Amino acid sequence: MLCINIFKHSIDAFKPRYSFGVRRNYSSLYSVSKKCYVHLLIFKLLTRSVMSSTKGTKLALIQLLSVDDKESNIKNAIKMIETAKNNSADIAILPECFNSPYGTKFFPKYAESIPDGATSQALSECARKNNIFVVGGTIPEKDGDKLYNTCTVWNSKGKLVAKHRKIHLFDIDIPGKITFKESDALSPGNNYTIFETDKLKIGVGICYDVRFPELGNIYRNEGCNLLIYPGSFNDVTGPLHWALLLRARAVDNQVYVTGVAPARNENAEYKSYGHTMFVNPLGQVESETEYQEGILYGYVDTDKITETRQNIPILKQRRTDLYDVTYPRL
Amino acid sequence: MLCINIFKHSIDAFKPRYSFGVRRNYSSLYSVSKKCYVHLLIFKLLTRSVMSSTKGTKLALIQLLSVDDKESNIKNAIKMIETAKNNSADIAILPECFNSPYGTKFFPKYAESIPDGATSQALSECARKNNIFVVGGTIPEKDGDKLYNTCTVWNSKGKLVAKHRKIHLFDIDIPGKITFKESDALSPGNNYTIFETDKLKIGVGICYDVRFPELGNIYRNEGCNLLIYPGSFNDVTGPLHWALLLRARAVDNQVYVTGVAPARNENAEYKSYGHTMFVNPLGQVESETEYQEGILYGYVDTDKITETRQNIPILKQRRTDLYDVTYPRL
Repeated sequence: MLCINIFKHSIDAFKPRYSFGVRRNYSSLYSVSKKCYVHLLIFKLLTRSVMSSTKGTKLALIQLLSVDDKESNIKNAIKMIETAKNNSADIAILPECFNSPYGTKFFPKYAESIPDGATSQALSECARKNNIFVVGGTIPEKDGDKLYNTCTVWNSKGKLVAKHRKIHLFDIDIPGKITFKESDALSPGNNYTIFETDKLKIGVGICYDVRFPELGNIYRNEGCNLLIYPGSFNDVTGPLHWALLLRARAVDNQVYVTGVAPARNENAEYKSYGHTMFVNPLGQVESETEYQEGILYGYVDTDKITETRQNIPILKQRRTDLYDVTYPRL
Repeated sequence: MLCINIFKHSIDAFKPRYSFGVRRNYSSLYSVSKKCYVHLLIFKLLTRSVMSSTKGTKLALIQLLSVDDKESNIKNAIKMIETAKNNSADIAILPECFNSPYGTKFFPKYAESIPDGATSQALSECARKNNIFVVGGTIPEKDGDKLYNTCTVWNSKGKLVAKHRKIHLFDIDIPGKITFKESDALSPGNNYTIFETDKLKIGVGICYDVRFPELGNIYRNEGCNLLIYPGSFNDVTGPLHWALLLRARAVDNQVYVTGVAPARNENAEYKSYGHTMFVNPLGQVESETEYQEGILYGYVDTDKITETRQNIPILKQRRTDLYDVTYPRL
């Protein structure tokens, strides 16, 4: 029954929305709705066993379509979080750069201070009103004369419980394919970020942070059972590495991992690879989307982590007499 | 032209060999030869660009079929190394436990001291005679009253240049699927192992060692450009994790990685997953086999490593002010 509800909801989520008078590239999104239908049928079958669990923490992974209009993006995010709550999600997770198009030229214009900026205030109120944890993807954050790519986390009372500034900035240059230099506009964060719900301990990284295994190892050592990476890969690095990196973090640390991406906007300069993904502690992809806007659900079952770690006890077998990952303790 | 030679050779390698009077399960191997033909055609197409390079180091990844007869296994290994040399390989790599069936009950019987045991002597002579580097997969090593799962490395003059004892022993218990406790019979090694050829710096791990990312990170930090993992996964962990772990080590460290497995012996208690694999610094599988005995070739091109690290410069971007992998320096 739960499956059917989610299925109906997901189809709704793919319908075009014309609110706010903003031109969005809906035609291509809507044209894939039949494909989505098939996709979701497969998704339904794949996730049946997951959906039948009621003891886990239910995540709503919101693959949001961002456009060049902050107010519209915020309203869209709020609407999706409400939908997630209506589908009994415990934590709603937004993608990277959800209130802005992704691009260094947009960051100064869209940046806000945290927690008093408009986006923060909207997320706080939404979390409180809907009694739901909100992991606010990322927004460009302004602090003094510096900008950061920052994830905020709001508990179900609307309180800011964590803030992660992207540690590793996305500076890559694959000639003729993709060149991007985030450090032209942004400063890096200098801390790792963990927060807790009543059931979970959660580590946060942002997009390019996923390429650095040490960050995942730190979160594992600190007892996290879920790693959340809002991230916007592209058509070059996405097919190459998005799934591989998320699965690698999961299998090496025996934790759940999710990567939450923006939907693809064909009109944008930087086109997101999408493919929001939910990976279990065995490194298996439990569910994933493609390019379109929508909500993917996943259950975090800590018993599955315990079982995995009993079966293949690599955490006990690590040779810390020979090596270790060192970092400043919180 | 080189492609065609390799292709012909590979087909030859799948023909049954009835030498030594040992009953081997050739029927199933030979029955897949047509499939192999198709497989190898695909392999040929996939690896054409790789094969056209002549400046790299050519690896021969020998997926050897081990039986319950040490002398036979050694002779088979020598023959395959000779074939590798005839195909211009620079380094021949044997799989885990190549002189013995895999199983704790076999280890005491098959164990030898190194370098004076029969297997070591045969590999040394073969390396010298054929003027080829030999990475001797692994054998059960006897040292005093202890046994180890050990990889020996012989240079082209027949000199032992490295010895790696498996650091992380394979103790897993997935109820109803696979239970194995290597520590019932073996002791663990306590060192990481690096050796050098004229062109490469190479790190060695054995099978279960691949599950521990820190070992790969150490090799990366020490300047290795190739990681070699002789390994025998099984029908449970193989499909789940073999490719994922090898690819994870490659993409995180931007190095070449190979996993060299025994061929599948349907008569053995422990059935190898096979799937010897060669992965490039982007984490892409350049080539792989299935279950059958044969030789897979791969080229290590250090320019590809340089290019990958220039394009996605994660090694420079690591935040060693925030974390690092610590270990005793050599």
